[in-house]
Amino acid sequence: MSSHSRIDIQEPTFGAGIWHFGRYVDRYATDGYGPPVSTLEAIDLAGQVGELSVVDLTFPFDPPDLPLDDVKTALKRNGLRAIAVTPEIYTRRFTRGAFTNPDPEVRRQAIELVSRGAETARELGCDYVKLWPGQDGWDYPFQSDHSELWRLSLDAVRELATNFPDLRFAIEYKPREPRNSMVFSSVTKTLLGIEEIGLPNVGILLDFGHSLYGGESPADAARLAISRGRLFAIDVNDNYRGWDDDMVVGSVHLTETFEFFHALRDAGWDGVWQLDQFPFREDSVEAARAGIRVMKTIHRALGLLDHEALAAAQRAQDALAAQRVVQQALLSAQAGQ
Amino acid sequence: MSSHSRIDIQEPTFGAGIWHFGRYVDRYATDGYGPPVSTLEAIDLAGQVGELSVVDLTFPFDPPDLPLDDVKTALKRNGLRAIAVTPEIYTRRFTRGAFTNPDPEVRRQAIELVSRGAETARELGCDYVKLWPGQDGWDYPFQSDHSELWRLSLDAVRELATNFPDLRFAIEYKPREPRNSMVFSSVTKTLLGIEEIGLPNVGILLDFGHSLYGGESPADAARLAISRGRLFAIDVNDNYRGWDDDMVVGSVHLTETFEFFHALRDAGWDGVWQLDQFPFREDSVEAARAGIRVMKTIHRALGLLDHEALAAAQRAQDALAAQRVVQQALLSAQAGQ
Amino acid sequence: MSSHSRIDIQEPTFGAGIWHFGRYVDRYATDGYGPPVSTLEAIDLAGQVGELSVVDLTFPFDPPDLPLDDVKTALKRNGLRAIAVTPEIYTRRFTRGAFTNPDPEVRRQAIELVSRGAETARELGCDYVKLWPGQDGWDYPFQSDHSELWRLSLDAVRELATNFPDLRFAIEYKPREPRNSMVFSSVTKTLLGIEEIGLPNVGILLDFGHSLYGGESPADAARLAISRGRLFAIDVNDNYRGWDDDMVVGSVHLTETFEFFHALRDAGWDGVWQLDQFPFREDSVEAARAGIRVMKTIHRALGLLDHEALAAAQRAQDALAAQRVVQQALLSAQAGQ
Amino acid sequence: MSSHSRIDIQEPTFGAGIWHFGRYVDRYATDGYGPPVSTLEAIDLAGQVGELSVVDLTFPFDPPDLPLDDVKTALKRNGLRAIAVTPEIYTRRFTRGAFTNPDPEVRRQAIELVSRGAETARELGCDYVKLWPGQDGWDYPFQSDHSELWRLSLDAVRELATNFPDLRFAIEYKPREPRNSMVFSSVTKTLLGIEEIGLPNVGILLDFGHSLYGGESPADAARLAISRGRLFAIDVNDNYRGWDDDMVVGSVHLTETFEFFHALRDAGWDGVWQLDQFPFREDSVEAARAGIRVMKTIHRALGLLDHEALAAAQRAQDALAAQRVVQQALLSAQAGQ
Repeated sequence: MSSHSRIDIQEPTFGAGIWHFGRYVDRYATDGYGPPVSTLEAIDLAGQVGELSVVDLTFPFDPPDLPLDDVKTALKRNGLRAIAVTPEIYTRRFTRGAFTNPDPEVRRQAIELVSRGAETARELGCDYVKLWPGQDGWDYPFQSDHSELWRLSLDAVRELATNFPDLRFAIEYKPREPRNSMVFSSVTKTLLGIEEIGLPNVGILLDFGHSLYGGESPADAARLAISRGRLFAIDVNDNYRGWDDDMVVGSVHLTETFEFFHALRDAGWDGVWQLDQFPFREDSVEAARAGIRVMKTIHRALGLLDHEALAAAQRAQDALAAQRVVQQALLSAQAGQ
Repeated sequence: MSSHSRIDIQEPTFGAGIWHFGRYVDRYATDGYGPPVSTLEAIDLAGQVGELSVVDLTFPFDPPDLPLDDVKTALKRNGLRAIAVTPEIYTRRFTRGAFTNPDPEVRRQAIELVSRGAETARELGCDYVKLWPGQDGWDYPFQSDHSELWRLSLDAVRELATNFPDLRFAIEYKPREPRNSMVFSSVTKTLLGIEEIGLPNVGILLDFGHSLYGGESPADAARLAISRGRLFAIDVNDNYRGWDDDMVVGSVHLTETFEFFHALRDAGWDGVWQLDQFPFREDSVEAARAGIRVMKTIHRALGLLDHEALAAAQRAQDALAAQRVVQQALLSAQAGQ
Repeated sequence: MSSHSRIDIQEPTFGAGIWHFGRYVDRYATDGYGPPVSTLEAIDLAGQVGELSVVDLTFPFDPPDLPLDDVKTALKRNGLRAIAVTPEIYTRRFTRGAFTNPDPEVRRQAIELVSRGAETARELGCDYVKLWPGQDGWDYPFQSDHSELWRLSLDAVRELATNFPDLRFAIEYKPREPRNSMVFSSVTKTLLGIEEIGLPNVGILLDFGHSLYGGESPADAARLAISRGRLFAIDVNDNYRGWDDDMVVGSVHLTETFEFFHALRDAGWDGVWQLDQFPFREDSVEAARAGIRVMKTIHRALGLLDHEALAAAQRAQDALAAQRVVQQALLSAQAGQ
Repeated sequence: MSSHSRIDIQEPTFGAGIWHFGRYVDRYATDGYGPPVSTLEAIDLAGQVGELSVVDLTFPFDPPDLPLDDVKTALKRNGLRAIAVTPEIYTRRFTRGAFTNPDPEVRRQAIELVSRGAETARELGCDYVKLWPGQDGWDYPFQSDHSELWRLSLDAVRELATNFPDLRFAIEYKPREPRNSMVFSSVTKTLLGIEEIGLPNVGILLDFGHSLYGGESPADAARLAISRGRLFAIDVNDNYRGWDDDMVVGSVHLTETFEFFHALRDAGWDGVWQLDQFPFREDSVEAARAGIRVMKTIHRALGLLDHEALAAAQRAQDALAAQRVVQQALLSAQAGQ
């Protein structure tokens, strides 16, 4: 697994979810952490970052009747490409579930919304459609028949992947929030479901923070998904392990973020390094730049890492030796900044 | 502490935060988990529960220019009394802090908003003004000088309590959310602050769920606050210990909820048994009734509890014996339903 | 899934891990929470409980040269059968890993120890050999190549299952402890591994507490494992969701324990209801009786449960309705005690 | 608070708990993670580290009849001083409680053991006696009367501090383990207790890891304790926030460890930088060196930190600006290694 030399490490492509530049609301600041931000305004903010190449666009756009050509134009003027479309299957009508809503009519609406999003993704030339069924799950003990929720979830994804064989669908798993428990809660549960679906165009979007606060090692999760050919995309951010805080990359767990990116490169994965931060109280452009600055440091550290020494330490499972090698690479990378 | 006989246990008064009947929003369902609910509508919903005697009113009202007399009329027609006013010092202008905002002008606005709330509380004949400085805290390591936030917090509460000596101020502590860390994070930190303030009209609102997910034993927390004369009010709900889920009372932790109410009664505390549930996806009136049904079961169990046997088990710190006594009381209480 | 009527619910068979009756040690009370307990003494204590039919025996016995016939005699005189053997692949020589030890010689010793345990299980007529590779995992970021640990783990289990095709091997997963992260950490990761191994005689031992503190819904985890034919055994206990506290069944999470057993029965699983409690400071026989008393209450509640009403509530995903049905069954069951 | 210039920062004194070099046992590896290590052997290992000036000695020594002069000699030959004595009030006879044991005779034994430890501390010229009442607390809901445990805990500490007015007693708080809940669980609860005791010679030993996994900000906790004159000592290590993993300093939370030491220096605290690591599977001498290497990096970073810029960022509560300043100092410190 560790045969990659130092030379073939290319500069990564950076991306961000467009919501990074949007307006945040929560159950306390119900009037928002700032004024509303339209889709076009958000794209322009993403452009201001100056380092981003791609964005993941929530769908429907804001306003919903925004012509697609306007979106294309805005992307173009900011040097951006849409890597993905994320259909919003978690708003009011889906709060009791999207794919698993007890009402078949609402489940139908969820499929339809994702389908419209998929068509938009096709027109935008996206790499994948992101599925984030955050309202699919349960809140209380005994609330639902877990087997039924599981079946409904797999059926919906299978139907979508079958209907759009030319597109790829990436499921973003998460332990919880907004539901107290989500159906697609972990990397391995999602892999089990994907393999049960049995279609080649369904994979995983691995969010570093979701993995971390779900008790996984994100590096281990990435290797598992890659080994089965299902890692379609990643998002990075940080948190305190108890909640999806969506903080700036590396602000708490720099070493584990480095380990995550090392696992990706070591396994030959070369996708986009993508931000999913929620800078509630910070300037969103500055927060994106801060996250990218950390990712660049990590990228340099990957290049400087003594891979042979690390591999030797890992063969011996020698934690102290591994840390020395890793800290040496991180410091050299930072000093070279 | 355990000398209270079975006879003097009175029927408790039940209450609820008015937000229980409001409209919920979060960062995903930004269009809300249902349509907007005005203050008067919420009061009418509280009235429909049929078991509530008091409500805690958020301030300003919705709409903000709602005449106080209309509120009084609505309360009256629903057989309700306002036990408290909760000034909303956590909306957009306070997202970077209320009492601890880096901008002195915003800190001033927070004091003014609470002061107007306090005047309203006085007119409504409330028992206390609730202070919930949920935006006062920090998100990132090194973000702030903790000593300064602490000083600003105490100064603000002291100023308010000094300005309104005829009113009582109850600080509702909480470990986190919306801030990643709140200044008033635990029962003991809040007690330290209150004793440093040194005024008799500052106390604690102990939210069972906040205590639970903060790693406290709510029963222990209650006894500490009562022993120092600072337990002004309580809220109850439930969660999975990792977040403030605000679920229906007793849905996960029935035994510990019982222990909490037992501690209150054993220590002679006889305040209102108050709901702070967030039924995002449930009917709010039914959810309130469900919480009260559980509290009534607990109240009956308190009457049936073999206090001598429990006291003996606790003197021996005999967990198995204590559980037997407790389970016996709970089952008898439920069977008598 | 919900077609089981109330009539066919048989009295469950109760079991316990023999360590329940052993001597506990931890890093503070290094001289133990009580005097040493030999295998034969532990079997006699299990017999004193009066409700146990089977025990899971750790191997080697204590003392290691204890003749198997003595064990058989002790089991017989106590009316017990050995349901499983648990080879101790987590003692000193395996602290840096059993199946994943960096030293191939130690890996070989682990295989050999399990093999000897398997032969003993065969002679005792056990239902399964339990694999609990608690030392297989990692402590630090970057300490190991997760892919390599995964491969070594699967290889070892495959080798064992191939060598003993007449025996069943049940992997007990756990998020962590004694390793900071275990390789077999969750139900779904273990299922992925088992399906990769591809042998029919490898399955899961689902420990309720491990599932709970790993962030799973134990009921959901059970349904997943059953749906794939891999639930070989269960253990029950309780904890505070942050650690494997191994408390008495139902002492904190009675409703979720009920939900777990309901899921087992609803899915047609009829194995042994087995205790894995660690009564550090309690009498082990009394603690076992307390756990069984709670399980009997739950069993009665399963018989009394209004399955049609619960199924209807679950189809509607109506948390409040489901809770009413469940609480009604629990209270009737307790009243009938 | 931030007036300290870069110049007056002295090289810190490093220390370690002697158990760092001892033999670890847990409930799985009951035969230990290595062979037994006597007190004298542990002192010699501490000496091998080459950077330690002081050690905290558990008491009784191992073997218990080891002459004090032998300890003194061993300390001397290793260039070490005993900074503290930690009486072992958490072994078998104290497993149901030391200061709070339901049996008054055992409570008396705990007082006596600490008293003998205090006399030894006096003879060794220690700075403080450490109190770590890890078995004082509870495991189950309803198990004990929390007020009574609190009273017993304060009475015991008061008695000890009164009997030894020339010595200082440092309470090491911890949320849990080995008890599911400890009486002295947090910095603020311990401060409340200490102020209730009302004696000048009782303070706190703040363990970074205990604070972290208890949900505190260790920097905030330190400032609170210092502001009340009660921070007697500190221990450092690291963990994953869910348990007291006692990992090598900085291996997970380097930034927050830096913040902790910054808070100490900023508040003028100049005590020993002391290790409390449990290198279960690592070489204990190497693990100590690794922890000290990280602390030295942090110390250099404190000297290089742009205190004015950080103070400005903190006044504005500007997380992004603060991070920039901090990362700059850390990288310069590492580069200077």
